[in-house]
Amino acid sequence: MKLLTYKTKHTEPRLGFLHNNRIIDMEDFGEISNFPLPIDMLDLIDMGYEIIEEITEMINETREIDFEQIGYTFEEVEILAPIQRPRKNIIGIGLNYTEHVAESARTLDTTGKLPQKPIIFSKPPTTVTGPNTNILMNPKLTQQLDWEVELAVVIGKHGKYVPNKEALDYVFGYTVINDISARDCRREGQWIVSKGQDTFAPMGPYLVTKDEIPDPHNLNLSLKVNGVEKQNSNTKFLLFNINALIEDLSTVFTLEPGDIIATGTPAGVGAGRNPQEWMWDGDVVEATVEGIGTIINTVKEI
Amino acid sequence: MKLLTYKTKHTEPRLGFLHNNRIIDMEDFGEISNFPLPIDMLDLIDMGYEIIEEITEMINETREIDFEQIGYTFEEVEILAPIQRPRKNIIGIGLNYTEHVAESARTLDTTGKLPQKPIIFSKPPTTVTGPNTNILMNPKLTQQLDWEVELAVVIGKHGKYVPNKEALDYVFGYTVINDISARDCRREGQWIVSKGQDTFAPMGPYLVTKDEIPDPHNLNLSLKVNGVEKQNSNTKFLLFNINALIEDLSTVFTLEPGDIIATGTPAGVGAGRNPQEWMWDGDVVEATVEGIGTIINTVKEI
Repeated sequence: MKLLTYKTKHTEPRLGFLHNNRIIDMEDFGEISNFPLPIDMLDLIDMGYEIIEEITEMINETREIDFEQIGYTFEEVEILAPIQRPRKNIIGIGLNYTEHVAESARTLDTTGKLPQKPIIFSKPPTTVTGPNTNILMNPKLTQQLDWEVELAVVIGKHGKYVPNKEALDYVFGYTVINDISARDCRREGQWIVSKGQDTFAPMGPYLVTKDEIPDPHNLNLSLKVNGVEKQNSNTKFLLFNINALIEDLSTVFTLEPGDIIATGTPAGVGAGRNPQEWMWDGDVVEATVEGIGTIINTVKEI
Repeated sequence: MKLLTYKTKHTEPRLGFLHNNRIIDMEDFGEISNFPLPIDMLDLIDMGYEIIEEITEMINETREIDFEQIGYTFEEVEILAPIQRPRKNIIGIGLNYTEHVAESARTLDTTGKLPQKPIIFSKPPTTVTGPNTNILMNPKLTQQLDWEVELAVVIGKHGKYVPNKEALDYVFGYTVINDISARDCRREGQWIVSKGQDTFAPMGPYLVTKDEIPDPHNLNLSLKVNGVEKQNSNTKFLLFNINALIEDLSTVFTLEPGDIIATGTPAGVGAGRNPQEWMWDGDVVEATVEGIGTIINTVKEI
C-alpha cells in the first residue's frame, strides 16, 4: 500500500492512500467500511503492521463504484511528507556504500576506511519537508549545499537487541529521503549542523508498506540535479544492510514505532566530484527510489 | 517555581510543583483555583512562560491551610525526569568549558582548539531517565563509561534567528543533565552512539523556572562519584554562554517549546584524568547545579 499525507485547500494534513490513481482519505475509508481509521500516519503505525493487512482486505472487499464516490485526484491535493513530525531526530547512516566512502575520503575529512560498525548521526524533526517544497539555503551558513538520495526505513514496533534475522519484522515500510548536507558546516567533525538545518530532509512522496517491497536490498536509487543524473546505484550495495542496521541500532537505542532510518547514500554526491559541485538558488533536485517514487524539491536562498 | 514530574503508587506520571516542602499536583491546584492546569510538563510549556507568572500569583492568593489539604510528602512520591519524553533529541553542546577542551584533547580524539562555533550533537529521547534510576551499562558496547554534569536549558517558545540580547526571553527554565558518555563508542568521530544509549541522560530533579535563577551564568556545578568530588566549576566559565548558544542554534534549527539544550560540561571527566577513571556496576553518581538540585543515579551492568 502506498500511504501518504496530504492536504486540500480545505483540510489540515490528513492520512490517505493511493487507489486506482486516486487519493483516498483513510478516515473516510474507515467510515464507509465501519472500521475507525486514523487521520495521522504515526497513529496508523502505532496500530501495528497488522492493520495494513486488515486495511488491504477491506480494500479488496470494497466495490470500485464506492471508491469512485470518495477521494481526490492528484490535482486536488498537495502531497506532504508522509511523517510530518517524527517523534525524535531521524537516524542517519553515513558512509554506507563503498564508493561513497572512497569519494568522501578524497574530499571531506573522513578516513576512507570501510566502517566496522554503522556510522550514525541525526537530523532533527524540523528538517522534514515534503515534495515540491523549497530546500532553504542560508548563504551565511553554507556555500557547499549537497544532495544525497537515500532509502529510508520506517520502524513499526519497539525493538531492543533485535536479532539480524528478525529485523525486517520491525519494519513498517519505506520512503525516500534526500539527506541534504552543507559540507562546510561540520564542527569538530560532528555532522548535525551540516545535515540538521530546517528543510534538509525532503521526504516522500509515499510511505510504501513493506508488503509492496519484496526485496528492499535490490532497489535502484538515483538522483538528478536540474535534469542531469548525479547518482545511480542500488541498495544491494549497502555496506550494512537493513537487517544489520536494525540489529546494530537496536543495541544502542530502543527503536520505536515511527522511527526513521535514512540508510545512507551511494556515490555521486557533489562533494565527491572533480571539480566539486554544489546546489544553488533555483536548482531542482529529484531523488528516486525504485518502488517508492520521486521527490522533487527546489533550492531557495533565504 | 520548582516544577517536577512525579508519580505515586496509584498514578501515572503527573506534573507538580514544590510548595513548602510538599509536592502539589498541578491539575489539582488548578481545580481548587478554578483555573484548568495540565498534567504534563510539555503541555504547561506550550501555554507560554506567562502561565508561570499567573500560577505564581494564584499560589500567593491560596491560603496555606488549603495547600495542607492537597499534595504529597517526598516519601509518598517518586520524582521522575521533569520532561519524560522530549519531542526531539536533546541538543548537546560539546567542548564548552576551556579546561574541558584541554583535557579532552589530551586523551580523546578532539583537536584541543577552542571551538569557533558551538559543537553540537544530540541525545535521543530514549536517553532520558529520572532521579534515583539506573544508568544502564552494556559491557559489550563500552568499557569507558564517563560522567558529565551540565546545566540544561529548557526552551519556552519558537525561535529562529534569535538575537543574542533577546535569547533569554526564549528560555522557560533550567534543569540538570548528567551527559553520560561511553568514550569508546565514537564512530568516525560521531558522538551519538557514545552519548545516545538508553538511560544516558539522567535529568532532574526539577525544572526550575527562570524567575528563580537570577543569573544562569553564575551557577556552581559539581559532580561526585561514590561520594568523591570529580567536577566543580561554575557556569560563568562557559565558552559560549546561553545567549550565544540560543543565537547560534536558532540560525541552524528552529528552536521549539520543550527543546532541551545541555550546555556542556566542565573539566574533571573520567577520560581527562591520569590515570583515566570510568564508572562500573554499582557506582553512584551525583550531579548538582546550584539553584536546581542534585540528581543521583546508580550504574547497572546489563
